[in-house]
Amino acid sequence: MRDKEQTVSAIPPKTSVVKLPDAWFIACESRALRAKRPMPFTLQGTPLVLFRSADGKPAALLDRCPHRNIPLSLGTVTKQGELQCAYHGWRFDGSGACNAVPGLISEQVNIRSRCAEAYPTAELDGFIWVYSTPGPTPAEGPYRFPNLDDARYSTVRRDFTVTSTLHAVIENTLDVPHTAFLHGGLFRTAEKKNEVEVVIRRHAAMAEAEYVGEPAPKGLAGRLLAPQGGVVTHFDRFLLPSIAQVEYRLGDKSHLVTTSVMTPLDDYLTRVWAVVTYRLPIPNWLVRPFITPVAERIFAQDAVILRAQTDVIRKFGERYTSTELDVLGHEIWRLLEQHAHKTPPAAEVKEHRVKMRT
Amino acid sequence: MRDKEQTVSAIPPKTSVVKLPDAWFIACESRALRAKRPMPFTLQGTPLVLFRSADGKPAALLDRCPHRNIPLSLGTVTKQGELQCAYHGWRFDGSGACNAVPGLISEQVNIRSRCAEAYPTAELDGFIWVYSTPGPTPAEGPYRFPNLDDARYSTVRRDFTVTSTLHAVIENTLDVPHTAFLHGGLFRTAEKKNEVEVVIRRHAAMAEAEYVGEPAPKGLAGRLLAPQGGVVTHFDRFLLPSIAQVEYRLGDKSHLVTTSVMTPLDDYLTRVWAVVTYRLPIPNWLVRPFITPVAERIFAQDAVILRAQTDVIRKFGERYTSTELDVLGHEIWRLLEQHAHKTPPAAEVKEHRVKMRT
Amino acid sequence: MRDKEQTVSAIPPKTSVVKLPDAWFIACESRALRAKRPMPFTLQGTPLVLFRSADGKPAALLDRCPHRNIPLSLGTVTKQGELQCAYHGWRFDGSGACNAVPGLISEQVNIRSRCAEAYPTAELDGFIWVYSTPGPTPAEGPYRFPNLDDARYSTVRRDFTVTSTLHAVIENTLDVPHTAFLHGGLFRTAEKKNEVEVVIRRHAAMAEAEYVGEPAPKGLAGRLLAPQGGVVTHFDRFLLPSIAQVEYRLGDKSHLVTTSVMTPLDDYLTRVWAVVTYRLPIPNWLVRPFITPVAERIFAQDAVILRAQTDVIRKFGERYTSTELDVLGHEIWRLLEQHAHKTPPAAEVKEHRVKMRT
Repeated sequence: MRDKEQTVSAIPPKTSVVKLPDAWFIACESRALRAKRPMPFTLQGTPLVLFRSADGKPAALLDRCPHRNIPLSLGTVTKQGELQCAYHGWRFDGSGACNAVPGLISEQVNIRSRCAEAYPTAELDGFIWVYSTPGPTPAEGPYRFPNLDDARYSTVRRDFTVTSTLHAVIENTLDVPHTAFLHGGLFRTAEKKNEVEVVIRRHAAMAEAEYVGEPAPKGLAGRLLAPQGGVVTHFDRFLLPSIAQVEYRLGDKSHLVTTSVMTPLDDYLTRVWAVVTYRLPIPNWLVRPFITPVAERIFAQDAVILRAQTDVIRKFGERYTSTELDVLGHEIWRLLEQHAHKTPPAAEVKEHRVKMRT
Repeated sequence: MRDKEQTVSAIPPKTSVVKLPDAWFIACESRALRAKRPMPFTLQGTPLVLFRSADGKPAALLDRCPHRNIPLSLGTVTKQGELQCAYHGWRFDGSGACNAVPGLISEQVNIRSRCAEAYPTAELDGFIWVYSTPGPTPAEGPYRFPNLDDARYSTVRRDFTVTSTLHAVIENTLDVPHTAFLHGGLFRTAEKKNEVEVVIRRHAAMAEAEYVGEPAPKGLAGRLLAPQGGVVTHFDRFLLPSIAQVEYRLGDKSHLVTTSVMTPLDDYLTRVWAVVTYRLPIPNWLVRPFITPVAERIFAQDAVILRAQTDVIRKFGERYTSTELDVLGHEIWRLLEQHAHKTPPAAEVKEHRVKMRT
Repeated sequence: MRDKEQTVSAIPPKTSVVKLPDAWFIACESRALRAKRPMPFTLQGTPLVLFRSADGKPAALLDRCPHRNIPLSLGTVTKQGELQCAYHGWRFDGSGACNAVPGLISEQVNIRSRCAEAYPTAELDGFIWVYSTPGPTPAEGPYRFPNLDDARYSTVRRDFTVTSTLHAVIENTLDVPHTAFLHGGLFRTAEKKNEVEVVIRRHAAMAEAEYVGEPAPKGLAGRLLAPQGGVVTHFDRFLLPSIAQVEYRLGDKSHLVTTSVMTPLDDYLTRVWAVVTYRLPIPNWLVRPFITPVAERIFAQDAVILRAQTDVIRKFGERYTSTELDVLGHEIWRLLEQHAHKTPPAAEVKEHRVKMRT
């Protein structure tokens, strides 16, 4: 062994990781960003600092002082809504301009060039959104949640953080076959009796799966949710850059949309901002006690599986073998790559159909 | 410092690490693999899952579902002895064939091609062995322990896990000079009085050191172990792929063989499966209370040193300076490399002699 | 995602890290190195072992046995002042020569060539110093602290370990503008009223900033420290290889010098050995209760900022934007690089002046 040496070889971790430029992501809830306290936030591995500038408007800067690399999130917000570095007191406004270098006498002219990179922000629907590319605010604002302003709808918000790539979380959220196994007993059973047709539609910035022929719930649940009977309508949708949406209708009176906006904190860490808007013929006090614990148990099971998947992928790379049951996985990846590489999307809508037992 | 940047340089970790193809290693004791529970096992850095398939026969598959990279060891074993993935319920038999993709209607033809890589297994002498190369079961089975079926012999089994390369553990196990220092007082003393001759023999797949002239124990111990007196015979052997054996004879009645089968879990993590078979003129109830605590204390001391050695090697690489006292170290490395690179071994037996004080 | 794979990209950490050859650094206090116990010490990432050899003289060897890579600091010191390895008992003297390989009979001739690399040491002013290049002891000894032998001066010693590059700690120690913010209220205020002139002098192996026009303290403090009044003299100095010195004079009677010898344990870990020598017109029992807690609070604040800076630098690399307030930062880096690359220094002294508000 003395004369021979061997280099430790590591299997290169190759995985479905994308970086999405020019995209709005949710950073936090509006109420979480206080007036005087800066807040660190990592977006796609980039450290940012959020704070409320002069007019209370949210601002997002790169979280490092251009002077000596100190995180600006360790600093304070002045009464004038400037972010002041904790080390030497340099002060920045919401646009990232450096308004003051305390102690400096001579070089006042160039002071505004010592800026901190600023990212566009928006405050909308109770969330603070950050744009993933620094620079001017884009013409198009963030995604708007459906039915939020419709008085007939109730809303539940939840957020979760999961150790997983953006792609794997989105696929998991829109995947039907795993529910019978991973969430066995909660809302589908492993005994597959019903044959369902799935229509998959490919749009320019969206992919959609429509499930045709799903049976309506039976017994008491069916009578409560659809007193006059009616067919089930079920759509699963992926919307660029990172939105997974599941929509159910049952007759005229029951309608439920779960919209999950995913924020890629880092390559393998994703935060899920879920907004459930629903209209049901049952009173809310009867619905709420069920909807939240079931959702949280489902999420906890998914989180365990996704973390295990991530561990394998990071150590050993990934290999996928898909079947036609993986109806949206490939479309999600195609759209994510299209956005990541700014490839022009195909104009026409394509459609194909598969059958599965659920 | 602004204009100048310097890359952090890491010392490349070069170490005596080998990967051994076409080799049988012990995965676990037979009794540890229950009927219904899959068990993860890492062999040379490769994650495997063990389970008992249809006929109770042990099976070993790569521990990642070919569908979505989930560890199969998170799944369950069905009544039919199939391993079922926790995520979507894909089912695999002991050969790795995928017998079912739940929900799938159309593609039944190709279903058996979605297989999980399978590794040959054997159940022998109370251990489950796994072959390090996936594919067909080789003609030659695992190593057989000596004297296990001889009624005159007693057996003690122990296993330890040590943070060390396979090479370093084997060398440590067969190294005599360290015992006086690291295990000082336990079975050799630092005051070296006896001059001993060592005959080193190099075979095609084995290396052996015979110690000639070791003194018999004195006093009570000598009278107990060899009532009629007699000479000590002492062999240290390394057998490919990973077996270290220490054999002692004292007169006609005392015979003790410690066989340690090493399993390289990862580059720097090795599991030692030690089987001690012995025949002594002293009753077993008198021997057992001594043999286990002494062995465990020796192992604990070795484990500390090997872990420290591994830390140094991983951070700073390795440099060895050997003397003729390191009688088997070079032979072990030569054989390990020969096996790793599938080099044809030399046919003839070579022999040389050295003298040392013990 | 099946067909496409993407490599995880890491931002290369580029930072102001230097390795300084041919330099004396403090390893520990004299009293910390006991007669019989070897002590591990890491210098610029290299593991060393300190021990007291035959005549009680400190010795420093590379902390790995040349035989089997075991840290020698796990060993023991014999009565003869040899360092004995814990594994096989090889014994080394203070020069690194291997005096014994226990058990070896034949090869006595070459035994002294199996040496462990030795680093020059010196014991001076209560510290043990180690030279960063192994080999012969250089003609020039370590730095001598000022005023240690002057009976009019009192001395306080403190040491701290900070997660930071050598460069960043030195710059921080000699930086004036941050004190008003990071240590706000402790000894300067954020309201900057005084205009001060700074004279920066560049020498061959030293850089110095002299602050001209700093106001004397007012009120009780002023009357205690300079009863007859007088001007403030304030120098900040960087001396190669790693010494930061702050000197204050107030009138004839008050004189305080803080000398911090920095030891780069690793690229991002630096130990600060601070020696404060002072002569004040106030009795020592009145000074001591204040000087230590204030110094420790200042250091704790600096340590937090430097660790945060280091975290940013290690993850994302570094970018600096300096102003003329950063009076010594560039000079420190220039000198460190000059020493690291053994560049001949410029002979003449250069001087320039800046003004700042403090």
